[in-house]
Amino acid sequence: MVVRVSVVERILSANDRLAEANRARLDAAGVFAVNLMASPGAGKTSLILRTVRALKDRWRIAVLEGDLASTLDADRVAAEGVLSVQITTGGECHLDAAMVQSGIEQLPLEEVDLLLVENVGNLVCPAEFRLGVHRNILIASVPEGDDKPYKYPPMYQGVDAVVLNKIDVLSAFDFNLDYFRRGVEALNPGVAFFPLSCKTGEGLDAWLEWLEGGIRSRE
Amino acid sequence: MVVRVSVVERILSANDRLAEANRARLDAAGVFAVNLMASPGAGKTSLILRTVRALKDRWRIAVLEGDLASTLDADRVAAEGVLSVQITTGGECHLDAAMVQSGIEQLPLEEVDLLLVENVGNLVCPAEFRLGVHRNILIASVPEGDDKPYKYPPMYQGVDAVVLNKIDVLSAFDFNLDYFRRGVEALNPGVAFFPLSCKTGEGLDAWLEWLEGGIRSRE
Repeated sequence: MVVRVSVVERILSANDRLAEANRARLDAAGVFAVNLMASPGAGKTSLILRTVRALKDRWRIAVLEGDLASTLDADRVAAEGVLSVQITTGGECHLDAAMVQSGIEQLPLEEVDLLLVENVGNLVCPAEFRLGVHRNILIASVPEGDDKPYKYPPMYQGVDAVVLNKIDVLSAFDFNLDYFRRGVEALNPGVAFFPLSCKTGEGLDAWLEWLEGGIRSRE
Repeated sequence: MVVRVSVVERILSANDRLAEANRARLDAAGVFAVNLMASPGAGKTSLILRTVRALKDRWRIAVLEGDLASTLDADRVAAEGVLSVQITTGGECHLDAAMVQSGIEQLPLEEVDLLLVENVGNLVCPAEFRLGVHRNILIASVPEGDDKPYKYPPMYQGVDAVVLNKIDVLSAFDFNLDYFRRGVEALNPGVAFFPLSCKTGEGLDAWLEWLEGGIRSRE
């Protein structure tokens, strides 16, 4: 097991160096980049589609779609008329900095204001791999249950914002919002928090305002 | 990357040997064991609680609870009066055969008919690690969306049954049951399929009957 740990550490350290290179490249081109992480089905693609529709007339947006196998999500995003690059991980359970590097190489970065990176649906592994983006976002969702911060702490600890999606179905689930928030706050005090519904649009304005604040900060 | 791949292969091969040892031990003791895998929040613990309540008067049940950090699930299961062992993975994204081995060492296997193993909530990584159980089960849930077989094929390919939980909220989500089933069938033709609701109890009988068939097959 010693061998394994040292190999993993070497991989992570190589990943961090690539992440720094990604960040330098994004900064030089004036791109504000965010990494969206979540369990499968929490609503990463839905939030991207909502965000693209709301902001594409004001900002130039590109999307990197990370998936194990299919191009379903990239196709949905491309249908909105924004640049979309599919990163197929070939079974890997997370994006890493090298995959993001190969993705941004296919983009005209000088013509992009906002880069949305959709990670593989996974509430564990993506937390370990820095990509070089400016903000890391975790999207939770009501049907997953209010105990997730307590059960998947590493992901909640390392992010700059927590989105709670699907609040339109709060009444159909036993979800205690106070319990959820206490769990989030204990792991990540003061983290930005956006309860919203990609289905009804409720709560989206606060998220969009926060995101636009980030885009403007880069100018 | 060559180094990494060969290390991963060595780990997987060591894992397979341990899984075979687990299987031999379970068989010798007459234990029927199942591995429950799912995204976070799909309902692994809820299905275990429902199953325990329905079957604990007929069969002697034990539960191994895999979690990154907390003992929340093990506590809920223990409250039902069945044997419950917590396996804390310390951040690892899946159970492996060594963890299951250390878990079953803490159980009086000769006094167990059914062993339920709850894997870490993750729709990617657990698929790669055999544990030595008799059946692998994937629990999907309606709020995750009907496209998950298409986006996470390895998990769907390797299981003996697919449970679709939370059918009580079908009308609140855009979930096309035919599209979901076609995706499952394409990856895993003829796999057992149990649409059910752990909340209302609808559909549980078919699942319990299938599970009891497994328990009886071992006698």
